[in-house]
Amino acid sequence: QEISDTKFGKGLLNFTAKDSSFSVKFAPRFQFRSFTTWNHDGEEYMDPEQNFLIRRARLKFDGFALTPKLVYKIELGLSNNDISGANQFTSNSPRYILDAVLKWHFHKNFELWAGQTKLPGNVERVISSASLQLIDRSIVNSRFNLDRDIGLQLHHKFKLGKKFVIKEKLAFSQGEGRNITSGSQGGMEYTGRIELLPFGEFLEKGDYFQADLEREPSPKLMLGAVYDINNDAVRTRSNLGSFMLLEDGTLYETDIQTFFLDAVFKYRGLSVMAEYAYRDAEDPIARIQGENQPAEYRVLEGQGINFQTAYLFKSNYEIAARYSRNDYSDIIEVDDVEQYTLGGSKYIVGHKLKIQADINYSKQAGIEDFISFRTGFEFHF
Amino acid sequence: QEISDTKFGKGLLNFTAKDSSFSVKFAPRFQFRSFTTWNHDGEEYMDPEQNFLIRRARLKFDGFALTPKLVYKIELGLSNNDISGANQFTSNSPRYILDAVLKWHFHKNFELWAGQTKLPGNVERVISSASLQLIDRSIVNSRFNLDRDIGLQLHHKFKLGKKFVIKEKLAFSQGEGRNITSGSQGGMEYTGRIELLPFGEFLEKGDYFQADLEREPSPKLMLGAVYDINNDAVRTRSNLGSFMLLEDGTLYETDIQTFFLDAVFKYRGLSVMAEYAYRDAEDPIARIQGENQPAEYRVLEGQGINFQTAYLFKSNYEIAARYSRNDYSDIIEVDDVEQYTLGGSKYIVGHKLKIQADINYSKQAGIEDFISFRTGFEFHF
Amino acid sequence: QEISDTKFGKGLLNFTAKDSSFSVKFAPRFQFRSFTTWNHDGEEYMDPEQNFLIRRARLKFDGFALTPKLVYKIELGLSNNDISGANQFTSNSPRYILDAVLKWHFHKNFELWAGQTKLPGNVERVISSASLQLIDRSIVNSRFNLDRDIGLQLHHKFKLGKKFVIKEKLAFSQGEGRNITSGSQGGMEYTGRIELLPFGEFLEKGDYFQADLEREPSPKLMLGAVYDINNDAVRTRSNLGSFMLLEDGTLYETDIQTFFLDAVFKYRGLSVMAEYAYRDAEDPIARIQGENQPAEYRVLEGQGINFQTAYLFKSNYEIAARYSRNDYSDIIEVDDVEQYTLGGSKYIVGHKLKIQADINYSKQAGIEDFISFRTGFEFHF
Repeated sequence: QEISDTKFGKGLLNFTAKDSSFSVKFAPRFQFRSFTTWNHDGEEYMDPEQNFLIRRARLKFDGFALTPKLVYKIELGLSNNDISGANQFTSNSPRYILDAVLKWHFHKNFELWAGQTKLPGNVERVISSASLQLIDRSIVNSRFNLDRDIGLQLHHKFKLGKKFVIKEKLAFSQGEGRNITSGSQGGMEYTGRIELLPFGEFLEKGDYFQADLEREPSPKLMLGAVYDINNDAVRTRSNLGSFMLLEDGTLYETDIQTFFLDAVFKYRGLSVMAEYAYRDAEDPIARIQGENQPAEYRVLEGQGINFQTAYLFKSNYEIAARYSRNDYSDIIEVDDVEQYTLGGSKYIVGHKLKIQADINYSKQAGIEDFISFRTGFEFHF
Repeated sequence: QEISDTKFGKGLLNFTAKDSSFSVKFAPRFQFRSFTTWNHDGEEYMDPEQNFLIRRARLKFDGFALTPKLVYKIELGLSNNDISGANQFTSNSPRYILDAVLKWHFHKNFELWAGQTKLPGNVERVISSASLQLIDRSIVNSRFNLDRDIGLQLHHKFKLGKKFVIKEKLAFSQGEGRNITSGSQGGMEYTGRIELLPFGEFLEKGDYFQADLEREPSPKLMLGAVYDINNDAVRTRSNLGSFMLLEDGTLYETDIQTFFLDAVFKYRGLSVMAEYAYRDAEDPIARIQGENQPAEYRVLEGQGINFQTAYLFKSNYEIAARYSRNDYSDIIEVDDVEQYTLGGSKYIVGHKLKIQADINYSKQAGIEDFISFRTGFEFHF
Repeated sequence: QEISDTKFGKGLLNFTAKDSSFSVKFAPRFQFRSFTTWNHDGEEYMDPEQNFLIRRARLKFDGFALTPKLVYKIELGLSNNDISGANQFTSNSPRYILDAVLKWHFHKNFELWAGQTKLPGNVERVISSASLQLIDRSIVNSRFNLDRDIGLQLHHKFKLGKKFVIKEKLAFSQGEGRNITSGSQGGMEYTGRIELLPFGEFLEKGDYFQADLEREPSPKLMLGAVYDINNDAVRTRSNLGSFMLLEDGTLYETDIQTFFLDAVFKYRGLSVMAEYAYRDAEDPIARIQGENQPAEYRVLEGQGINFQTAYLFKSNYEIAARYSRNDYSDIIEVDDVEQYTLGGSKYIVGHKLKIQADINYSKQAGIEDFISFRTGFEFHF
């Protein structure tokens, strides 16, 4: 096998060592975005603002080492959006590493993961940002998702009868998100996800990319449920959001639970994704204990729903629609938000080279907030 | 084609996929520098200071994807000089990405570019820092150049008669330089450049590298002119320099125009580059409007000239001389500067492996400022 | 030679260009760590804390260019631990570059190095962090080592009789450590190291990796001595530690000397390493001159000893033990520390894929400080 046997979209490098002692797929990628936004000032929409952005840029390495049973993944962020978030808990350094994880298939149907990677949270989050059918993920995901974290995961799957597949994923992690160098603050995080695939596996792992590019010849469904408990969590969105550093220099700690239900359905070019998210904290108001001060931070409690559907034409043009809504718990005094999105994609080389556009109508606390027109491309070896 | 078909100076990787679905050249590079500087204290030159520096270190990817008509370029900075400049507008993150751009040859002689890359400004800037004949660019370039920005560019060229080539380059960009994540501040930037090549194209695109390494057998000339308008610009040097953040927390905005004339001539080892730069702002004094406060920032208005010439011996040793001068507009109260540079290079593998040295005599406001002796090498796959 | 001729542990890429104009080994690596720590509160050990960490993650390039006599090395840090340390002297930017150096074998047995890389200090430091037999280096190394710096090195070696090898290494460097962009502060640093190998060279350069993976059939010994003088040093640990920025904005400067003696012995699976470190400063108390203020910083003066030994079983399991102790000079009022470590490693593919664990018993000022259990793996192409 020669290095140049790969083709565009299958990695810039993609080879197995002659002695089969490892394989590697190496892929750079980047996303270019143009945003045109009309903000609403309460009375009318104002003049549009025009922005350009390299939204994501990444280097990815994955493959096996020593044996096909030992799989590695290293993903590095390059864009300023990817690496931002430096603070005292990350040694005041940019967060360059997204994934650095080994996955060991140590026994039939069992995998042990060790390192930093995505937690087994809601499906929308775990789907790569390279494999979306709209310009970006929903507001439900952006406010409620469980992000990457560092620790251990145990994955298992089995078949029930001929087709029905069940997958269980457990994670034990530090609970403060990725690239923490200061050690665990507060307590640890525990995540469990179960997935039911009553009609069997999707083609080419199609439950974990958007758009029915495989045009599933028979209906495929994935139903998922996630429960996550972050003990003595110190950030406003469990392992994401602001660190709740109080004025007295201590970190506020409270248990945060997150719950998801999600579903993915694909059939002959049609794709549907639905999600429900719920989060609550033992005490969402962060302030110095015993004192009757105003809140310094508030855990983002509440619930969200997201529903999106799309149809892929045989020309590889797709139209997609999404409705998302976040209702926050009253006590934290954050405005509810709602968003309608209508988008189109042309998949030139699947998700590896595509042009996309969408229009978003957004409301906050029930009134007009902004309209944005977003367009851009994904370029992915 | 095998990966090991490449040779030093042509990329660490340089191959086309077997199915011709993409090509790639991947090249790391770095520059080592030693600076010895004698500062003048107004009366005499003081004892020298000795510094060492990794001035630039980069990873570059370029090639085509899908079709030779779709060209990509990704360039990443690694050295602290390359990535510095973090601030609130870059998500307080280092500026790792230099280029992330697709160039689509969509029609005969037309190219559309989308992404982040150099604007079509003065030739000295657009020439790679790997392809200089002195240790670094001139003071004219460092004060007046248009840098990289994000947005769209349209390039076109045509022939007038048998030889005469004319190129037009237009850019529409955000106007705050590279790696901005906060969206456009102020207004947008518009750039136009026209190039006249009356004796035809340079060999191997020699107008865009210094030193006549091709030893042009017939005289070649490129004449360029640039006009750039940055509407409601918020930085002191158009899309470079300090963000003009006023004490009241607002960004000062003023229209900034930049104008260049430049010329490159090469013939039988002789190379000449001449540049004229001019910049002015609608109101260069940045202060809160309506108040009679002292300036918080000043747009760097003024003009500069740069002239350099070099001769390359057949042994690939070169001697080069440069004169540069910046005259700032009186209103901004910045001292004029002037610099004489004399340098030599040994091109071992062209610009890919070379040793260089130069000596600089620098004056500020007409009096001695410093003398520096600079030496170093470029190492470039 | 094809790219896929390499095997796991010999580089993800490892090839020589067909025309022999260069060679390259490219290797990503990362280290995952789990730390369980029982701190002692003066009366008893408290409940353990559990942390996970990507301790190191790197990209390495090395090989020759143009001729086997010109060797390059580029090493980039990716983990937050690797890149931390941004400050005003690094352009407030993360410190991505570890090594960027050319090594020119310009004459029989002589090498000239130019760029940024490790100084020829104590052997424990110069051994790669990928090639340790315990989870991390000793406290002696962490407090007294000479780190990377930028400048020039001259290496030479010769034989005395049939076997006895003597190596001399000299360095002239900036003295503030790696990734400095502000030029030399204070004076320059001069380092000299001599190595005696009375029984000849170790197999596969085994003096510079831990664990006797080669199972030396005859005894091998390396004795080293280092003297380093950092003139007008501005950091608390010579070219490492805090910059001694005084309240009046000036940098405190004092001459700092560092001295090492070290030894490495290997024979049939047994390995021994011993080190002695000594540092003193002309005036270790950093304060504004002439004033009788309290110290703002203190140079970490004192001495340390480190002794470690290990035995590698034929199964490639190893047990290792270490004793380390730092005694600081009284004047700087820093508690002495002492540490006992007992560890085990399983080398699956040498140092490239290994699992390790150790337990540390640590005392400060003679009383219990903490016990930590550390485990993790190295994954290294």
